[in-house]
This record gives sequence, structure tokens and C-alpha cells, in this order.
Amino acid sequence: MDTATRIEQALTAAVARAEAPPAPPKLAAAVRHAVFSGGARVRPQLCLAVAKACGDDTPAMSDAAAAAIEMLHCASLVHDDLPCFDDADIRRGKPTVHAVYGEPLGVLVGDALIVMAFEALALAGAAEPQRLPALTVTIARAVGTPAGLVAGQAWESEPNPELIAYQRAKTGALFVAASVAGAVAAGSDPGPWRGLGERLGDAYQIADDLRDAVCTPEELGKPAGQDEALGRPNAVAEFGIDGALARLQQLLGEAVDSIPDCPGAPDLQQLVLLQAKRLTPKRLAPASVA
Amino acid sequence: MDTATRIEQALTAAVARAEAPPAPPKLAAAVRHAVFSGGARVRPQLCLAVAKACGDDTPAMSDAAAAAIEMLHCASLVHDDLPCFDDADIRRGKPTVHAVYGEPLGVLVGDALIVMAFEALALAGAAEPQRLPALTVTIARAVGTPAGLVAGQAWESEPNPELIAYQRAKTGALFVAASVAGAVAAGSDPGPWRGLGERLGDAYQIADDLRDAVCTPEELGKPAGQDEALGRPNAVAEFGIDGALARLQQLLGEAVDSIPDCPGAPDLQQLVLLQAKRLTPKRLAPASVA
Repeated sequence: MDTATRIEQALTAAVARAEAPPAPPKLAAAVRHAVFSGGARVRPQLCLAVAKACGDDTPAMSDAAAAAIEMLHCASLVHDDLPCFDDADIRRGKPTVHAVYGEPLGVLVGDALIVMAFEALALAGAAEPQRLPALTVTIARAVGTPAGLVAGQAWESEPNPELIAYQRAKTGALFVAASVAGAVAAGSDPGPWRGLGERLGDAYQIADDLRDAVCTPEELGKPAGQDEALGRPNAVAEFGIDGALARLQQLLGEAVDSIPDCPGAPDLQQLVLLQAKRLTPKRLAPASVA
Repeated sequence: MDTATRIEQALTAAVARAEAPPAPPKLAAAVRHAVFSGGARVRPQLCLAVAKACGDDTPAMSDAAAAAIEMLHCASLVHDDLPCFDDADIRRGKPTVHAVYGEPLGVLVGDALIVMAFEALALAGAAEPQRLPALTVTIARAVGTPAGLVAGQAWESEPNPELIAYQRAKTGALFVAASVAGAVAAGSDPGPWRGLGERLGDAYQIADDLRDAVCTPEELGKPAGQDEALGRPNAVAEFGIDGALARLQQLLGEAVDSIPDCPGAPDLQQLVLLQAKRLTPKRLAPASVA
């Protein structure tokens, strides 16, 4: 089965558990809306690619890790879109959860998805319980505080956030967790895989900042120019467009170089290059990436 | 070590992890505010009392279960207090998290506490990994959807919530999880303990409804009369004050009767009677409870 199908099946199973009776109907519909709204599934694909490179001897466990990471990513998007943060009505070209279902369900869907992520890990963990503690801690640290997604978002409430700490927490941490969790779910040493996640996370954040600065709302499927409008720390403000683009290219090259020599290496290199093409705004793409 | 000290130590350790560098300072302070604001720790005490009755052979695991349950309870209070739900500025006689730190940090503290709960379970789970899947799933189901705290809160967004489903999810589920998790953390069959959690959860919800209806804001440490003001389904509206009080007494009696015959039974009976006294509004207390 290809990785995209495995990811969708694992997410479908988790959402089906969440919307089973006696689930409140609006909450069930809102959870489904949050998970199946056209996400690119970049992080779970990274997780499964690393798991495959490590032998992937317990696919139920790597599938759960991939789905958990994607649900946590979706949770962070739903909460980031709330009126008290970005107040975004559109995401991926579709109305956001709170725009359709109201602010209370926006809060509750994020909460539900966080819980669903850890439930999915635990359900799969029965197959290899001795891997579950490290797998859960890896993912929890990437999304919580002091250095995960929640901490990253909280830096926006501080008077003088430091760009690197902010971006590592808000974006990088979950990429690192995706690569590390892929190895841990497969029973392998995660050490050699951390660098790949770090480079991809940094690259993804810079690409996101570039796209926010130079793309139209139609290209983004959401409002553009938000970093500048909201005064958020970002790579374009710090390095300029050319400087940020150069840094993006450098990081993607380092990501490819960081992949350990293993049977799955070609697939992983392919994944990184595909992401590089997808992430770089078309009007900025150099010939080697476009 | 007594159970109250064990609970505070486990919570202190979890909060210390969350506020370690590079935690954003406001988030760290807001997490501490949410966890240490005078909560009665009813659920973690139930969890540890059941664990002790079951032998409590791995205290690190039962302590983590108790702390996780309390952090999830705190998370639900912080989110319930948000402007889009109860819009409460006062809780336990102190300003709520969002009243002090703003709405963004109110959302993020709830998210952080949910993650911290599952991280605490996983860290302790390394001691007895084969217990971790069931322990985590028990607690996740009690707080998520379709039938946990999040589902309970989401029933308030439905046009015709059913009182029993709503209250079981919003309050009962975490009491059931507290008793079941105490047994699972100690490696025991949780079956005989489910009934105790169910009765205490139902009793607690009715007591909460009674207190909201008959106590003053000073007695409650938060605004009174909120169920009626917000049109929330509640036991006083359904059964009247006398009917609700009779049901509360009956449930507390059933809770005491449900305790299995074991060395820890007297301590547990004591805990239930103490809660009965604490929960019943003074002006309604019959001689046998006051």
C-alpha cells in the first residue's frame, strides 16, 4: 500500500472513532472538516518515509505515529485560525472550522484532535508497548511546551520573540518529531534522522514566510501578507526575499545530504525534492528546483 | 507519603518540565496559574485511593495517572472559562487564566495541559510499558470525543442536548477514568471499580448543579446561577431542588456500597463521605451528611 493511502486510512479510522455514537453531531462534523480539507500530509509522509527506510516492521505503529502527527498539525491550524489569533476565515481555499461551526467548536475540535492523536498512538502501541513511551514523548514534546507548537504560538504573545526559537518551536519541532517518530515506530535508533527533520522544518518555515510575502491569496488558499500585517517575526523581514530564498535552497540541499545511506534513501531524496518544488513560490523558483 | 503530597509533587514535576527553557515566559506563568489555583484534587485523590486499594505496586505510574487526570481537568476549566463559552473572569475566587493573561494564552494553556498529561503518562510508562496503552486509552476516552469532556462541552452547542449524555460526558467520564486508571496503573482488573467512578461522577454533577442554584458567588468562588442564566441543561431544572438533593444522597450511598471488599475499602469509604460533606450545599445538608 502506498504511503498516501496508509495515511488517509489511519486518519479515517481515527475520525470514525471520534464520530461514533454518542458523539455530538456538530463536533463530529467539525472534526471531519478539520482533518479532511485538502492538507498536503507533508509531515506524515516524512514519518512513513523514515519508517520505511528503517524497515517498518510494525506498520500499525508507524501509521498511528503519522496520523497522530497530522492530527496535531490540524489541531494547531484550527486553533491558530481562531479569532483571538489569526482570525482567518479561509484555509486551503475553504472556510475554516470556526467560520463554519462557530468559535466554541473551533476550540473544541482542536482539543479533540490533540486527544485523538494520543489515543491513536496508544491503541497502536499495544503491538509493541516498549516503543510507546519514547514515541509518545517524542511527539508530545514537539507539540507542547517548552519547545513545541504550543510554545511557538505562545511566542506571538511575547514582546520580543527570538526568531529562531519561535520558528523552531512553531514549525521545526513537528518536522523533527515526524522523522524521529518514524524511526522510533520502526524500532530503530532515531539519532541519524534528527538532522533531516531539522533541515526540512527550517526550510518549510522559510518557504511559508516567502509564500506569505509574495503569493496572492488565490495561490495560497488563504489571506496573504499576514506576517507583515500582524507584525509576526518572519524570515522575509529578517533576511529580505533574496536572502530568505538563498537560505531555503541551502537548507533543502543540506536535508538531502543528511539522509543516511540506507535502502530507503532514494525515496526520501525524492520526497525532499518534491517538497522543494511544492514549497518554493513559482515566481521565485530557480531552474534547478522548478 | 500521603496522597495529597504525591499529587502535588507529580503536578509540580510536570509544570517544571513545561516551564523549563526555552519556554515563553507568559505561557509558563499561565500554566502554573492554571494548575496551582486551589483545586480540591478530587479526581486524582480518587485515582490514588483506588490504586492503593489495588496494591499500588508502581507508584510512579499511579502518580502520573493522577496528575494527568488533574491536568486534563484544569485544561477543561481553562477552556470552559473562555469568552466563547462561560466568559468567566473568576474561578475558585481567583482571576481565570484568560482574565490575567489574555484569550490567546487561555487557549494555549489548555492545549499545553492536554499535551503535558499524555507526556506525563508516557514518561512514567517506561516503568511498566505493557500497562501504558490501556492507561492512556482510558484517560483519552474520558476527555475526548465521542463521550468525554470535549464531547460534553460540545453538547452545549447542540439544539437539544440530552441531559444524561451531556452530564456523563462532561463530568462523569473523568470520574470513571480516575477510578479505572487507578486500577490499571496498579496492574489490576478495572472492572470492579467502574461503578464507583460512575456514581461519584453523577453525584458530583448534581452537587455542582445544586451549588450553582443555591449558593452565593462568595461561597462558590465564581459567579452563581450560571446554568439558568446560560440555559444549560441541569439537574435542578429537571428534578427541582428537593428531587436533585434526594438523587445526590442516593448516589453517594450507592458509591459507598459499590466499593469492593478489599484492604483499602475503609479509606475509600472515608473519601466518599468527605466528598459528600464537601459537595452538599450547607443550607441543604441533611444531618447525616453535615
